[in-house]
Amino acid sequence: MDGKKIEQEILEITEELIKDYKSDRAIDKMDTFHQPNKDSIIDITKKLLRIVYPGYYRDHVYKVYNVETNLNTLMEDVVYNLNKQIALILCYSADYCGCCDDECATKAEELSLAFLKRIPKVRALLDTDLQAAYDGDPAATSIDEIIFAYPGILAITIYRLAHELYDLGVPIIPRIMTEHAHSLTGIDIHPGATIGEYFFIDHGTGIVVGETTVIGKNVKIYQGVTLGALSTRGGQNLRGVRRHPTIEDNVTIYSNASVLGGDTVIGHDSIIGGSTFITESVPPESRIYYDVK
Amino acid sequence: MDGKKIEQEILEITEELIKDYKSDRAIDKMDTFHQPNKDSIIDITKKLLRIVYPGYYRDHVYKVYNVETNLNTLMEDVVYNLNKQIALILCYSADYCGCCDDECATKAEELSLAFLKRIPKVRALLDTDLQAAYDGDPAATSIDEIIFAYPGILAITIYRLAHELYDLGVPIIPRIMTEHAHSLTGIDIHPGATIGEYFFIDHGTGIVVGETTVIGKNVKIYQGVTLGALSTRGGQNLRGVRRHPTIEDNVTIYSNASVLGGDTVIGHDSIIGGSTFITESVPPESRIYYDVK
Amino acid sequence: MDGKKIEQEILEITEELIKDYKSDRAIDKMDTFHQPNKDSIIDITKKLLRIVYPGYYRDHVYKVYNVETNLNTLMEDVVYNLNKQIALILCYSADYCGCCDDECATKAEELSLAFLKRIPKVRALLDTDLQAAYDGDPAATSIDEIIFAYPGILAITIYRLAHELYDLGVPIIPRIMTEHAHSLTGIDIHPGATIGEYFFIDHGTGIVVGETTVIGKNVKIYQGVTLGALSTRGGQNLRGVRRHPTIEDNVTIYSNASVLGGDTVIGHDSIIGGSTFITESVPPESRIYYDVK
Amino acid sequence: MDGKKIEQEILEITEELIKDYKSDRAIDKMDTFHQPNKDSIIDITKKLLRIVYPGYYRDHVYKVYNVETNLNTLMEDVVYNLNKQIALILCYSADYCGCCDDECATKAEELSLAFLKRIPKVRALLDTDLQAAYDGDPAATSIDEIIFAYPGILAITIYRLAHELYDLGVPIIPRIMTEHAHSLTGIDIHPGATIGEYFFIDHGTGIVVGETTVIGKNVKIYQGVTLGALSTRGGQNLRGVRRHPTIEDNVTIYSNASVLGGDTVIGHDSIIGGSTFITESVPPESRIYYDVK
Amino acid sequence: MDGKKIEQEILEITEELIKDYKSDRAIDKMDTFHQPNKDSIIDITKKLLRIVYPGYYRDHVYKVYNVETNLNTLMEDVVYNLNKQIALILCYSADYCGCCDDECATKAEELSLAFLKRIPKVRALLDTDLQAAYDGDPAATSIDEIIFAYPGILAITIYRLAHELYDLGVPIIPRIMTEHAHSLTGIDIHPGATIGEYFFIDHGTGIVVGETTVIGKNVKIYQGVTLGALSTRGGQNLRGVRRHPTIEDNVTIYSNASVLGGDTVIGHDSIIGGSTFITESVPPESRIYYDVK
Amino acid sequence: MDGKKIEQEILEITEELIKDYKSDRAIDKMDTFHQPNKDSIIDITKKLLRIVYPGYYRDHVYKVYNVETNLNTLMEDVVYNLNKQIALILCYSADYCGCCDDECATKAEELSLAFLKRIPKVRALLDTDLQAAYDGDPAATSIDEIIFAYPGILAITIYRLAHELYDLGVPIIPRIMTEHAHSLTGIDIHPGATIGEYFFIDHGTGIVVGETTVIGKNVKIYQGVTLGALSTRGGQNLRGVRRHPTIEDNVTIYSNASVLGGDTVIGHDSIIGGSTFITESVPPESRIYYDVK
Repeated sequence: MDGKKIEQEILEITEELIKDYKSDRAIDKMDTFHQPNKDSIIDITKKLLRIVYPGYYRDHVYKVYNVETNLNTLMEDVVYNLNKQIALILCYSADYCGCCDDECATKAEELSLAFLKRIPKVRALLDTDLQAAYDGDPAATSIDEIIFAYPGILAITIYRLAHELYDLGVPIIPRIMTEHAHSLTGIDIHPGATIGEYFFIDHGTGIVVGETTVIGKNVKIYQGVTLGALSTRGGQNLRGVRRHPTIEDNVTIYSNASVLGGDTVIGHDSIIGGSTFITESVPPESRIYYDVK
Repeated sequence: MDGKKIEQEILEITEELIKDYKSDRAIDKMDTFHQPNKDSIIDITKKLLRIVYPGYYRDHVYKVYNVETNLNTLMEDVVYNLNKQIALILCYSADYCGCCDDECATKAEELSLAFLKRIPKVRALLDTDLQAAYDGDPAATSIDEIIFAYPGILAITIYRLAHELYDLGVPIIPRIMTEHAHSLTGIDIHPGATIGEYFFIDHGTGIVVGETTVIGKNVKIYQGVTLGALSTRGGQNLRGVRRHPTIEDNVTIYSNASVLGGDTVIGHDSIIGGSTFITESVPPESRIYYDVK
Repeated sequence: MDGKKIEQEILEITEELIKDYKSDRAIDKMDTFHQPNKDSIIDITKKLLRIVYPGYYRDHVYKVYNVETNLNTLMEDVVYNLNKQIALILCYSADYCGCCDDECATKAEELSLAFLKRIPKVRALLDTDLQAAYDGDPAATSIDEIIFAYPGILAITIYRLAHELYDLGVPIIPRIMTEHAHSLTGIDIHPGATIGEYFFIDHGTGIVVGETTVIGKNVKIYQGVTLGALSTRGGQNLRGVRRHPTIEDNVTIYSNASVLGGDTVIGHDSIIGGSTFITESVPPESRIYYDVK
Repeated sequence: MDGKKIEQEILEITEELIKDYKSDRAIDKMDTFHQPNKDSIIDITKKLLRIVYPGYYRDHVYKVYNVETNLNTLMEDVVYNLNKQIALILCYSADYCGCCDDECATKAEELSLAFLKRIPKVRALLDTDLQAAYDGDPAATSIDEIIFAYPGILAITIYRLAHELYDLGVPIIPRIMTEHAHSLTGIDIHPGATIGEYFFIDHGTGIVVGETTVIGKNVKIYQGVTLGALSTRGGQNLRGVRRHPTIEDNVTIYSNASVLGGDTVIGHDSIIGGSTFITESVPPESRIYYDVK
Repeated sequence: MDGKKIEQEILEITEELIKDYKSDRAIDKMDTFHQPNKDSIIDITKKLLRIVYPGYYRDHVYKVYNVETNLNTLMEDVVYNLNKQIALILCYSADYCGCCDDECATKAEELSLAFLKRIPKVRALLDTDLQAAYDGDPAATSIDEIIFAYPGILAITIYRLAHELYDLGVPIIPRIMTEHAHSLTGIDIHPGATIGEYFFIDHGTGIVVGETTVIGKNVKIYQGVTLGALSTRGGQNLRGVRRHPTIEDNVTIYSNASVLGGDTVIGHDSIIGGSTFITESVPPESRIYYDVK
Repeated sequence: MDGKKIEQEILEITEELIKDYKSDRAIDKMDTFHQPNKDSIIDITKKLLRIVYPGYYRDHVYKVYNVETNLNTLMEDVVYNLNKQIALILCYSADYCGCCDDECATKAEELSLAFLKRIPKVRALLDTDLQAAYDGDPAATSIDEIIFAYPGILAITIYRLAHELYDLGVPIIPRIMTEHAHSLTGIDIHPGATIGEYFFIDHGTGIVVGETTVIGKNVKIYQGVTLGALSTRGGQNLRGVRRHPTIEDNVTIYSNASVLGGDTVIGHDSIIGGSTFITESVPPESRIYYDVK
């Protein structure tokens, strides 16, 4: 086929697609100019990891003799870009759509600074998570190995950061952050979930923690565990309704177990065996296992 | 160890390896000159996402005032590279190995243009999938959030595109595309599967949908679900045989359930509970659950 | 908010964080100067893939007429960077912390050359794994497709390479390598595990193979399978203790099954059904399934 | 010297420099936030070359089947970035410093569109320059070779573009553009100069054409020629005064000749010999040479 | 101005330009598909420098323990890309325009291999040039400094390489190479010139050496020297005619001197003073100076 | 030609070249392992420009709210890389070749810190040069335009920085820096020259200022001026001997003038006309011009 013919074919396909874009369907409601930039949000997430774990996530640009100035420079970078993305999201999001560009920009600056002020609190929590991972896994040879190579701690770190943005009312960005963690680790924690200190995820792939889940202190969960909703066929009518379970302190949930439902409470100090399927509350100190046939 | 000694050691290891490469084993049958380029196929996949969801997957190269010309330019880029990769694959693949370079190139152009013409059809299907995701998940705040942050819709989109290439008889490329989706989302849908409209995957990690699976309309599946084969110890003898189940319309399959076997049919309007293990057909409107002991 | 005010706010947040960094918690024990570089280790891993499968993982920098010189150049690159990372890790790691920089450098060179010498052995094993994948999956159309698009073979390849480094006593790096494989494939094989020839992983997402697992020849496992520990609440006291199961030759374990415990042995030629939960040994040639209710 | 000591030294040098920055000297009057970006202006210049000579300056990003859409996309890119730089310059520049950001942005858009509309006129002039180069240089084998490899045509092209921006009253940007040409070619043409059609520069290094120079049609100049001011010790008092010579139609000026002064007119059809030094007018059809001793 | 209006304006300007492109002028005779790639030719030139001066122009991609394999890899890279560019040029160039793609490709391979075989000869000449630079400049502290920092040697090196391609009859590429040298150094040597051994250029900016110049052994020239044509108003009629001077052995030409004309011979062992203007032959051992008044 | 044949040809050419490399000529005395990295030195030079003119040479990596921390980070980067290059040069250079790696490293740190401490002094001088450029050129509309677009000030800035390194005894690096300036601007100032305050270069291409030149205050020179040696046929015997002229305060030298010889003194307040050729001293307040014939 000669170049001219291909050019013609491509033009026709393009015209067809342009027509297609102009349908009034869900898929066609794009606003090219005010969309947030997913890549930028992922980049911000990576820089937040460097702020949280100074030194572990290397800065390839500058060598570090002086942690202070390096941190400050990094912080300015994060503020600048986070301001921009939050402002775009605020303009874009239904809840704020009345605000003009300037109001959005001011609101965005307040939100991103408020967020950064919470990082020490997040680090205090992560310190307990790291300890839980070290104490809980005999294969761990050092805290460093956990920060370098454990998907669980990576997912929890991004969740704890995203949760603060979620808590401040920033839309969409926290979900993009936790979905990035999900893509890297196979661990899907909704930024709306509430999770106490000393949280340990072992291996992790396939874990789902739903939006309204509440998890106490010193909880340990394994790969494939679902803390989910019983049924969501109710769809958007269920928005804001408590749909996911409560896991009290000191609970261990083994691999591939499912705990479902907004009224389901796993009492403190319980152990939930692997591959179990729990849809009702269990009292404290329970031991729940299947028999093998 | 000094530089000279290391150089010598490396040379010896290299010679050893070169000898090793010349064995007549499966691992050593490379054809350096006609292999497709995996990175290029992934790049094409990313550009297809920008064509399918104009605006959501940003082009960092050009700012967009004018969607038409931007699309046309993007389309030319995709055509150029897809032509190249399909031509390489055709030369490479056993089924076409008789064709000379020119025949392959012509055939490749026909295939890639035929593929692009199908994109409006794919978008029409994706519109129903997006609606299903929005209707089915109370945590979804907007269609935008679904496109930006839901792994299920990402995996379905890439599957639907790859399926069209599979259907046109293009070898290997569709599998590289869906495996890329698998790597990003943990959702493994074989491009050969047949999937109806309004398909919703929640969370998704660990989902497997086999090559000969047939899924009806308005089906919803959760993380960890396997729609697989009963046994594949029969190996290559089973090629082309129906090995995976049929899921009829309006079925919901909860997390970690397995539905296996080419003769297994899940009747319409059924609900399959989490962590169940189904190897035989169930009638329409069934409710299948395990009890917890 | 004006630029000056933001600058002030950022400075204050920075100071707060610097203070936070100076706590004496696990999270704050960084040694900026001697940490290994995770990105570099991932880059080395990618280059090892190109050495193991010459041609399949393309070198975008140089065209290849001559495999020998290309390999040699690639090998030098790997040696140079691996030397550097191993030396950093040795200085960093508790077990070697007595050595000065020069001793570490010499030791690192010995280790990286010893590692590269083992690659032909690794390739011989991988040849059997490729054959197992081709024989075991009717959907596989060629060995090439398996190398290009099968997550199982990617995870096994990286595991087999990392296992050799683990076996040589290199700390942390093998774990970073297998965690990279985990991130790409959802398959989490600890580099300490022992795995025989003709190993096949189908689909793979959610698979966990623990540190002290021993797997025989011709074993086939599916997505979601856990070969794990019964309980790790014993934590660091269990370090070095056998905690994971033994899987004998010719065993198949279907999706989402869990086999747990250091004393658990799955006898040869057994088939373990999907979603089963095994915590005790089973004799050879067993068939273990759940009933569906 | 250990890391801590270096860190301390660097901090002290930094403090010293910060103090130095706060002097009230010419060198210290920076306005970090509103400065134009030199790299961006050079990038725009490169894209303008691709617009002027479609195909000759390759676009490495997209393959071109269709010149129209490629051009449109390129044009949007130029408009977007030129708008931004002109707006920054307008805010920055003394002549416009009263305008607020929005006024500057609107003015910038008008200027950049007006500029682009002039490109066909520029191309018509360049067509005559190309013809002059081909006719004038027996070493030229084709028009293509001239566009690819002649510094004279590159310098003239950038000058002709910059001159239009200068003519529209855009400050600083035209000078950055011609200085970029100067850096590449050694030919320094001030964007304020007026130059007629069929202009040919041979070799070119060392050529200087001052701000108020007027050059007629069909003029040919060689390397090292200066069309300059007699003396500029008068400095800023001379701003706006005619300081550079007039060169009438059909004049040839050989290498290293200097023609100086605002009242100096080289009459039409004259030939000025190499290494001459002219500070007074010469009548039409003159022949001016030095004797060699 | 709103986005829509700008889009409209840009579309109109684009249409105007597309019309402009379709004129039948010299500037509009582009052949997008067969043009050589200037950037690629410059890249090849840089790699040739690394081949000529192994080690001095660093390869940032691979570390070098082993010069042999590094060189071979580099050579393959150069051959691959040079083949491609020569083939494009041959198709493009008037002199070869009869050949089909395959003939051009074969011819290109022969030419690029023939070229590479001449590199040892080029290096032998450059060795004499380096010695001349070291002997001739008291400011030179070492051969290394000359290779690293002397524009003269850079320009001569690129000229000597380009001259071999010119001699093999490759069109346009040699000119692009020497024009690249010109842009970097201000020294403009036509690839057609003939230059003997022990050639030294001091400083160099502004030097012009025309296409038919012949330079003997042990010649030294300074910045601003022109070895040019008397007049080229004869234009294309002069193609192939000897237009530039002959400089015999052991001549020194000081800064800004011009020696012009195809019949002009500077006899051996002459010294030509700075800023002189020579249009007739001078006998051997001449001393030519201006008096200063 | 088939791939195998090309491979063979390339191998033969490589072998030939390797043999060629092993000659004992000047060109073959490479020490691959200890050579400085020219690209890195150019990169350092660019960062020094950003330190000298904060804000004018943009940092594309980080946005700048806070000049202090940005500067400190930049400074660390420069120190790190300058240390490395100076250490390499010291090991490499004949004058220091006795020192072991550690001694060189310590010496390098001292030199690079000493250099950075001199930057305020350099900036004070540059402030006078900027003022001279503004006062001296009626075409200059602002100090900013001079920093952005004047080659003279760029060349002087790099010279003044390089001169400090030269003065500290660092070999080769200063020459690479000024040669970089030469490549960008056509102005070639040897780092060994001594130049007073309020120095102004107009246009600049073709200017040469030799190693032992001494220039007073408030001197202004134009394009094409040579301040050079009378003859350097004496070669290396002249090393360290005064070979270049002295230019006293308040002198102006117009375009293409040459002033040559170590004994030549241009008396204060003189004006040297364009294209003159001066090889003997002139008294203060002289006016030197050629007549035009």
